[in-house]
Amino acid sequence: MVEHFFYPKTIAIIGATEDSKKFGNAVTINLLENESLKSEIFPVNPKSETICNLKSYPSVLEIPKEIDLAIILVPSKVVSFVVNQCIEKKVKRLIIVSAGFGEINEEGKNVQDAIAKKCKEADIRVMGPNCVGIQNLDIGINASFIQTPLKGNVSFITQSGSFGAACLYEMDWQGLGFSKFVNLGNMIDVNYTDMLEYMKDDNNSEVVCIYLENVVDGRNFYSKLKEVAKIKPTVVLKGGRTISGMKSASSHTGSMATSYSSLKTAVKQAGAIMCENLPDYIAAIKAFALLPIPEGEKIAVLSNSGGSAVLFSDNAEEYGLELAEFSEELKQKIDPFLISLVKKVNPLDMIAGAAEEEYYQVTKAMLEDPNIDIVVPCSVIPTFLGMQPDEHFKGVIRAWNETGRKKPMLPLMMSGNLLKPIKEIARKEKVPIFLSPKETAYAAKVLVDLMRKRNQDKI
Amino acid sequence: MVEHFFYPKTIAIIGATEDSKKFGNAVTINLLENESLKSEIFPVNPKSETICNLKSYPSVLEIPKEIDLAIILVPSKVVSFVVNQCIEKKVKRLIIVSAGFGEINEEGKNVQDAIAKKCKEADIRVMGPNCVGIQNLDIGINASFIQTPLKGNVSFITQSGSFGAACLYEMDWQGLGFSKFVNLGNMIDVNYTDMLEYMKDDNNSEVVCIYLENVVDGRNFYSKLKEVAKIKPTVVLKGGRTISGMKSASSHTGSMATSYSSLKTAVKQAGAIMCENLPDYIAAIKAFALLPIPEGEKIAVLSNSGGSAVLFSDNAEEYGLELAEFSEELKQKIDPFLISLVKKVNPLDMIAGAAEEEYYQVTKAMLEDPNIDIVVPCSVIPTFLGMQPDEHFKGVIRAWNETGRKKPMLPLMMSGNLLKPIKEIARKEKVPIFLSPKETAYAAKVLVDLMRKRNQDKI
Repeated sequence: MVEHFFYPKTIAIIGATEDSKKFGNAVTINLLENESLKSEIFPVNPKSETICNLKSYPSVLEIPKEIDLAIILVPSKVVSFVVNQCIEKKVKRLIIVSAGFGEINEEGKNVQDAIAKKCKEADIRVMGPNCVGIQNLDIGINASFIQTPLKGNVSFITQSGSFGAACLYEMDWQGLGFSKFVNLGNMIDVNYTDMLEYMKDDNNSEVVCIYLENVVDGRNFYSKLKEVAKIKPTVVLKGGRTISGMKSASSHTGSMATSYSSLKTAVKQAGAIMCENLPDYIAAIKAFALLPIPEGEKIAVLSNSGGSAVLFSDNAEEYGLELAEFSEELKQKIDPFLISLVKKVNPLDMIAGAAEEEYYQVTKAMLEDPNIDIVVPCSVIPTFLGMQPDEHFKGVIRAWNETGRKKPMLPLMMSGNLLKPIKEIARKEKVPIFLSPKETAYAAKVLVDLMRKRNQDKI
Repeated sequence: MVEHFFYPKTIAIIGATEDSKKFGNAVTINLLENESLKSEIFPVNPKSETICNLKSYPSVLEIPKEIDLAIILVPSKVVSFVVNQCIEKKVKRLIIVSAGFGEINEEGKNVQDAIAKKCKEADIRVMGPNCVGIQNLDIGINASFIQTPLKGNVSFITQSGSFGAACLYEMDWQGLGFSKFVNLGNMIDVNYTDMLEYMKDDNNSEVVCIYLENVVDGRNFYSKLKEVAKIKPTVVLKGGRTISGMKSASSHTGSMATSYSSLKTAVKQAGAIMCENLPDYIAAIKAFALLPIPEGEKIAVLSNSGGSAVLFSDNAEEYGLELAEFSEELKQKIDPFLISLVKKVNPLDMIAGAAEEEYYQVTKAMLEDPNIDIVVPCSVIPTFLGMQPDEHFKGVIRAWNETGRKKPMLPLMMSGNLLKPIKEIARKEKVPIFLSPKETAYAAKVLVDLMRKRNQDKI
C-alpha cells in the first residue's frame, strides 16, 4: 500500500533547483548523488531548462511518463495548485515537504485539510506536509533534504524531521545503518499505523524505531504496534511527555500531544520498548540492531577497572538485573589467565595489567559457560605496559566470533580520544561499543525485557 | 599538610625500570616526559646502573638528597622492607602504588595496617596502597601510571584508579582540564577529608570532584565537604549504591561500602552535587568547569529542530526546571531574524533554515534579556542550504563572548561524525558542548541547584 513511497520507478521533484540555498536543491542532489539509484528523476521547475544536467519540466503535467512519487518543495501558498496538477497527472504518491500549514495557524490547518480531502478522493496517499522526506537505503533512495546514513537493518519512523536527522547522526557515529527512514510531519494522511503495517512485512526492517509526539487513531496504532513488536524489536521515544514538552510539541507539528502515562502503558503492553530519553533510545536501538536476544538473564562482567565494574553492577541492579554467580567450572577455566591478586567473583576485576589474551580467554570462557547468558567486557583503555588501545576490544571480538556470536556481548570501552581505532573496528566488524556503565546496563536491560516478554508470550 | 604530595622538590621512584611491561616504567616515563617538570627525579632499582638516562640508586638510602616524596612500585611482599628504608631516610611523603594488600585478604589487611602504624609513628603521610598515583598538572607532575590529562581548573579525588583514568578520558574528550588528580586506593592514611582540606584552599582547584566507594570518618568528611562546597562547586559520584555494587566495591578496595541513601542525604545537605551515574557526573563537572553560576532559573531555548527542543523541554521539566515566557521586548528584538513560519514562543523553533547569523542574533538577544538567566541553543547540524557544520556554534560563541560570558550558555550540538570541527572549537574557546537533550537539561539542573543552594545560604 505504501510500497510506491519506498520503491518508486519514477520520481518528480516539484520545486527542484540548482540554487544551493533552497531545500529543492538538497533533495535533488541527495537523490542524484547516489550511484545505485535506479528510479528515474524528473525535475519540475518552470524557470529552468535543465537542473543538474536533467531536463526540467515546467509542470508535472508535462512529464511524458507515469509518476509513482512526486515530492513537493514549493512555497506553501502554491502547494494546493501543484497538488491539483498531481491529481490531474494521476501521480500515485505525494510527499509534501513544504512547511507553513497546520503547524502555524488555523488557516494553514484548513488548507492542509482540504489537500487531504481531495487527495483521498483521488486515491492518492500523502506524506507530510512539513517533513524532510523519506529514504530507502536498500535501493539507494534519499528523497529527503537531510544526510544519507549508512545502509543497515534499522527502520525509523519519526514525526520530527530534524530530530530524525539528529538520530541519524547518532546512529551513524555508532556504526548503525538504516533500511527505511520516514518523516511523517503533520500527518494529514500517512501515519504511524500505515508505516508499521509496511515495516512488519519488510524483511530488511529488522529493528523498528519510532519517535512520536502525538498518536492519531490510537486503537489501530496500538494493535499494529503489537503485531510488529511480536516479531521485531520495536523501540519508541515520545517527545512531549511533560507540560512544557507538550506545549512545545503542539507548536511544532500543530497537533495536541498525547498523554504520556497512558501511551507508556499501551506501548509496553504492546511489547515494544519505551525509552525515556535520547541516550537510552540510541542504546536500545544499538543493542537490537547488533546483538542477539539472550536466552536468559544471567550476566557476567569482566573488567580491568574495579570502579567501572562497580558502577555497571549498580546500574544493572537499578534496572532490575542481577549478576550471575560463577560456577566452579568457570573459575577453574579462567584461573590460568588471572594473576594471584584477582578474586574470582562477578564482576571479575582482572586489574589494570590484563591484556588482549586475558580478555580473549576470559570472555570466551564466559560465552561458553551454560550458566551465563550475557557477557559484559569492560575496559578502561590502558596507556601503559606497552598495551595497544584496541587490543582488549580485539580480544573480545575474537572470543565472540569463535563462539558464533550466539550470546549478546556488550563491550564497555572507556577511551576518550583513544576511541577512534576502536570505533573503526566496531563499524567494520558490526560489534556495538558502549561508552558508560549506565549505557551498557540499559542495553542489557532492554535485551532482557524483550526476552522476558517473548517468554511470557510463549506461555 | 599534604603539600609535599603535590609540590615535591625531590621524588624517589622505588621500583623504577626500563622494562615497558612494568608499572615502574610507566610512572618513570610519565614523570620524565613532561618538559615543565621542576622536581628532581631519583630512580631506585638495585639491578640497574641508569634508568632513562638518570643514575639509578640501589636503595632510597643511597640518594644524596632529602626526599620529599617516594613512590613505591615494588611487589607487595617487599613493600614493608622498602617502607622501613623510607622511614630511615626520613622521606616526607609516601605513595604506595603496589597492590596485594587489604583488597585481597585478611593477611594483606594486617600488612597494610602495620605499614600505616609505623609510618604514623614516623610522622610520614601515606597514600595508597593499591592506587595509580597522583598528578599536579599545575607544575607538570604526573606521578601515576595513567595518562596525562589537559591542564585546567578541575581537581579530582578518586578511590578507584582506573575508573579515575576513565573519567580523565571522558573529560579530555570534552576539553576539560585538571589541576590535581589523586587516587586514594586502600586509604590506610590519607583520605578524602585530607584532600578536601587541601583543595579548599588551593586556588587552582576551582571545581572539586570526588568518586568514592566508602566513607571513613564520616563526620569529618561531611563537615569538610560542606566547607568546600560552600565556596567551590563540588560534585560527588558513589560506586556501590546497590547490593551488587557494594559487594563488588568491597572486593575492589577491601572495605565495606557505605549505605547510599544516608550518604546521599549527607552529601546534599553539605551543598555538594550528588550524581547517579557517569554521564551525569561528566555533565555536571563540565557545566561547573566552563560556565558561570546563573543568577536565576529562567531558561530560554532556541533551535533549528522542533523535536530536539521538545525533548529538552521534557527533560528540563522532569528535572524541575521551567522555560521562561518571552517578553514582548524580546519578541520584537528577535523578530527581524525569524522567518514568518516561526512562532515566537519558548522553545523557539527557528526551523531547519536558520543559519549562523540567526543563531548569533537570537542567542545574543536572549543573553541580553533581563528576564532570562540561562540560554540553551540547540542545533541539529545541517548538511543542506550550503551551511557549514560549525557555523551555528560559531554564531552562539560570538554572542556569548560579546555579552561577557556572564550567563550560562549550554549549546546542544547534535552532529555525529560532524562533531570534530565543533569539538576543536569548543576546546580552543573553552566553551562546553552537550550532545543530548538530557545531558543539556541535567547540566542546567545542577547549575540551578547550586544557585538555589547558595541563595538559601544567604538568607
